Amino acid sequence: MPEAPSVVGGADNVLLEGISVRVRVPASSANLGPGFDCLGIALGVYDTLTVSTVASGIHIEATGEGADSIPRDERHLVVRAVRRGLEYGGASAAGLALRCVNAIPHSRGLGSSAAAAVSGFAAASGLLAAAGVREPFSDAELVQLAGEFEGHPDNAAASVLGGAVVTWADSPLDANPDGVVAVREAYLARGLVVHPGIRATVFVPETESSTSHTRGLLPDTVPRADAVFNLSRSALAVVALTTAPECLIDATVDRLHQPYRAPSMPQSAELVVALRERGYAAMVSGAGPSVLVLSTDAVTDEVDALAHGIGFATWPVEIAEGVEISW
Amino acid sequence: MPEAPSVVGGADNVLLEGISVRVRVPASSANLGPGFDCLGIALGVYDTLTVSTVASGIHIEATGEGADSIPRDERHLVVRAVRRGLEYGGASAAGLALRCVNAIPHSRGLGSSAAAAVSGFAAASGLLAAAGVREPFSDAELVQLAGEFEGHPDNAAASVLGGAVVTWADSPLDANPDGVVAVREAYLARGLVVHPGIRATVFVPETESSTSHTRGLLPDTVPRADAVFNLSRSALAVVALTTAPECLIDATVDRLHQPYRAPSMPQSAELVVALRERGYAAMVSGAGPSVLVLSTDAVTDEVDALAHGIGFATWPVEIAEGVEISW
Repeated sequence: MPEAPSVVGGADNVLLEGISVRVRVPASSANLGPGFDCLGIALGVYDTLTVSTVASGIHIEATGEGADSIPRDERHLVVRAVRRGLEYGGASAAGLALRCVNAIPHSRGLGSSAAAAVSGFAAASGLLAAAGVREPFSDAELVQLAGEFEGHPDNAAASVLGGAVVTWADSPLDANPDGVVAVREAYLARGLVVHPGIRATVFVPETESSTSHTRGLLPDTVPRADAVFNLSRSALAVVALTTAPECLIDATVDRLHQPYRAPSMPQSAELVVALRERGYAAMVSGAGPSVLVLSTDAVTDEVDALAHGIGFATWPVEIAEGVEISW
Repeated sequence: MPEAPSVVGGADNVLLEGISVRVRVPASSANLGPGFDCLGIALGVYDTLTVSTVASGIHIEATGEGADSIPRDERHLVVRAVRRGLEYGGASAAGLALRCVNAIPHSRGLGSSAAAAVSGFAAASGLLAAAGVREPFSDAELVQLAGEFEGHPDNAAASVLGGAVVTWADSPLDANPDGVVAVREAYLARGLVVHPGIRATVFVPETESSTSHTRGLLPDTVPRADAVFNLSRSALAVVALTTAPECLIDATVDRLHQPYRAPSMPQSAELVVALRERGYAAMVSGAGPSVLVLSTDAVTDEVDALAHGIGFATWPVEIAEGVEISW
């Protein structure tokens, strides 16, 4: 028979034990074409996570995507996020037991790392709230915590808020306890209510990609004309996503990242071109190699066959709600 | 006693005479901070124009802004736009009589040239419609005609559509009658319904500025980080303008044009800084030197005095409707 939940410690470090929380977090696609590092959308492919605070040790039971390759100790991304979240909330746990059922494929440009970070912080939030230590984290806190922990606030914000998001960074000066003024990146996000006529289709390849590698392909300076091109399209993307799906084609053209990365993922580039030639607003999902289509009509069987022919599976997915926490 | 309106000629060149049309066109502010060359807003400062087709000659009666400096012949910007618009519609006029009452200051970053172009094409549209030659030009036609004629489609679109606008350019291939394929720039625009709580204040200096000069101050390449910074803010600007006025401060920061032009307009730069320090979403209007504030509260007397102290007049203006044509 399990012991009753216990909360031990002072206000600054409450030790949690015997508390469980369940989290469901959606995948996400960042950039959406022109909105490099600032636009994202939540996609209905979900990881679910159950976290329990236990007396000692790290116990990880994982099935689904990545189950064979993840470390089953303190290095586990979700474990680190839970610990960091508890610390932020003024608590800790001696041990953690995790059950992960993962459907978001890894290293495909679908925000699996950001989703893992969000799930960890959301779990910490639930544990803290269940224990009565504090209110659940706000959405803004989750975006900030996951964004600075994992480094992709656009993906993280989509997984937190659901729907589509605009994210931006601010660099306020922050005086630390020693009086030294440091720049601390603040990650901010605003949710967009996606037009109900818009649907998402993800084309997922069997091959993986490394974001850090593909990011290295981007130049430090860009032609001003290309920057201005993307400016207009990223502004238009907000209009298209919320009120004008008929503008999605124009709103998803990019000159700042996809052209540079295309040589490293020729099949993705080929698929984007083929889809756009057929009238679909297609773009590389995040750093790729998955491809995202936003459209009002479902993609045709011909498109499905074409994608299959060059190694992509076609996934029609809902535009997802944000992370769910229950305890 | 005036002669009755007459329409003479074949479908390809109808000669108009004795027809009058009246146009009211608003000023505009382009860029709105981060949205270089792609965001604009119509401002309630208006030029009014009456155009009549007459038997011969160019007759220009002008009062208000620019009345002393404009050429009073075929070189007059509005005359040229009217003629070009009539030609586009398959008509012409032997002579034109214009009455211009201009309130939009020239060379201040308030879109006076674009407004003049829009007023000319709108007048042509009205003349053609009044003569029964064709339906009035669509908004899309007015944006395209004025944008390619004058070169600032962001300003032109704001003056045509009213409210706020996102504009973008497309470069479709266009086969001309000789079979030669040429790139023809298409100017596209989408109107935004501005949040009813947002009001505009323009700070207009006595000094003039030349757009072509200030444009020359911009570099051909920009840091990718700055481009990405502006991407997020221009996307956010659409959100702020339509549904989230509380984000206007964050949504109007720019790194792609204002910093480069600041040395050429130190008072404008100083005013933007002073206003932002006071919590106002301030930005340079177009290529300057006017400064625009978008806010939910009116600016204070202290701000008015501060602006006056460095040579700016404070104009609270409505966010305007688009061009009006009557005949």
